[in-house]
Amino acid sequence: MDLWFSEYHQEGVKLSINVDREVFSCQSEYHHIALFDSKEFGRILTLDGELINTEKDEFFYSEMMVHVPLAVQPLIRNVLVIGGCDGGVLRELEKYESIETIDVVELDEKVIQVCQKYFPKNQETFSDKRVRLHFQDGLKFVRGKEAAYDLIIVDTANPFGINESLFTREFYGNCYKALREEGTLISQHANGFYEEDEEAFRHIRHRLISVFPINKIYMSSVPSYAAGYLLFGYSAKKANPETDIQVAQWEAQKIHTRYYNPEIHRGAFYLPNYIKELI
Amino acid sequence: MDLWFSEYHQEGVKLSINVDREVFSCQSEYHHIALFDSKEFGRILTLDGELINTEKDEFFYSEMMVHVPLAVQPLIRNVLVIGGCDGGVLRELEKYESIETIDVVELDEKVIQVCQKYFPKNQETFSDKRVRLHFQDGLKFVRGKEAAYDLIIVDTANPFGINESLFTREFYGNCYKALREEGTLISQHANGFYEEDEEAFRHIRHRLISVFPINKIYMSSVPSYAAGYLLFGYSAKKANPETDIQVAQWEAQKIHTRYYNPEIHRGAFYLPNYIKELI
Repeated sequence: MDLWFSEYHQEGVKLSINVDREVFSCQSEYHHIALFDSKEFGRILTLDGELINTEKDEFFYSEMMVHVPLAVQPLIRNVLVIGGCDGGVLRELEKYESIETIDVVELDEKVIQVCQKYFPKNQETFSDKRVRLHFQDGLKFVRGKEAAYDLIIVDTANPFGINESLFTREFYGNCYKALREEGTLISQHANGFYEEDEEAFRHIRHRLISVFPINKIYMSSVPSYAAGYLLFGYSAKKANPETDIQVAQWEAQKIHTRYYNPEIHRGAFYLPNYIKELI
Repeated sequence: MDLWFSEYHQEGVKLSINVDREVFSCQSEYHHIALFDSKEFGRILTLDGELINTEKDEFFYSEMMVHVPLAVQPLIRNVLVIGGCDGGVLRELEKYESIETIDVVELDEKVIQVCQKYFPKNQETFSDKRVRLHFQDGLKFVRGKEAAYDLIIVDTANPFGINESLFTREFYGNCYKALREEGTLISQHANGFYEEDEEAFRHIRHRLISVFPINKIYMSSVPSYAAGYLLFGYSAKKANPETDIQVAQWEAQKIHTRYYNPEIHRGAFYLPNYIKELI
């Protein structure tokens, strides 16, 4: 059998991955969930036909979403993760002994169940005692929270469709209130290469700038994603992630990483001219 | 009509670009040459079915191959380019008034003719008075040259097949002799993500290390290439591209770039752990 999963990066550009089989699929209340096994990318999770992550390169962005803020603020104790169903971001957070609680908010309970069952490597991450799962809308969850978190990670890619409420000024304003005075929000910003993604980038950035005083953009290679990279937003009340990185403190914790290191942390904030022009 | 150009990044991974039409195709003595027009990537050049460059992202790697060495050694006068048929590297080199001669060595005269005709933006670059075209084998051309160049750029991607002689210890040894005492060789190293490319990377690096005392690896995003990025080798007799960058001198020349800047120069040498492990 010759079976290919294809994802459109743009109307006229698609990446196709040869898959051995569909491991599982179902229609939940919110998504069509499907998992595939492939030789090149290992197990692949898709929601509504969109590639969410692959076993082979998920650590690229999971590490960059977690270790960048943790290297700047070693005293992060309470974390809120919105989305992040596959457990990659959780796995990286749990490497820090200093973290006391991790609230994970995901609208679709079924997605979490499926990921727990079919990504065995990340299964344990959900049973860590510090993790509290909340199956509800992210915007509703964060509304009314005050100075409860040191770090919020919004691990959802698409500012349109079902996640739209997680990319509004109201949502970011609530996140600001939910963060303590040294707090940081990390979010995905698509890429700056294709027109649609550039639009998504501007949409997110425009809203974040109206809420947070510090908004830096950083970049990570992600081979399975559109244009081969992802931009992230580092939005903070106080810390500057370029100058405030605590290299010695981070290294003393001996966190094992496969992508992140303090050099790549610095380099990730150095952007090509065509992306600088978007900012 | 629904026409797609597909390139296999690996046996089980392909990138497909929707094309409006085939602009031109022919079989030369060495290659099947074909050009397409596409909405997302503009004009695309392919040789033997492999994507060589696209109008939209060619500047990513052309700039990174040229401005990185030129920012380290502002006194480069004589340059040798092997390959580089599309003119992108030439265009970037010609931005420097200090450069006196550029020898371009390309085996296949037909490829150069086609690129001159069908990439109108780069057409002028070939008629610059400093450019001397040589239609011959790169290995033969460089053999016997002594202290003739300040910079050699090997703008060919694949260490297997027709270009194999350009990735041998003999070729690199000849390049070493052809370079002056401050000389630098820039070469493409594929990527470190897919197994085949990792093999190509090791193949090239192993040979370069046996010839040059300084061998640094740097990275650039290239959305249309396998894994979305390309690794380059900076092999030099003396200069360290990380510490010897002459920022003020480079900036004083007011070179217009769309990707390169001195920050991205520094950041390009900061590599993810999984690539460091290959080195």
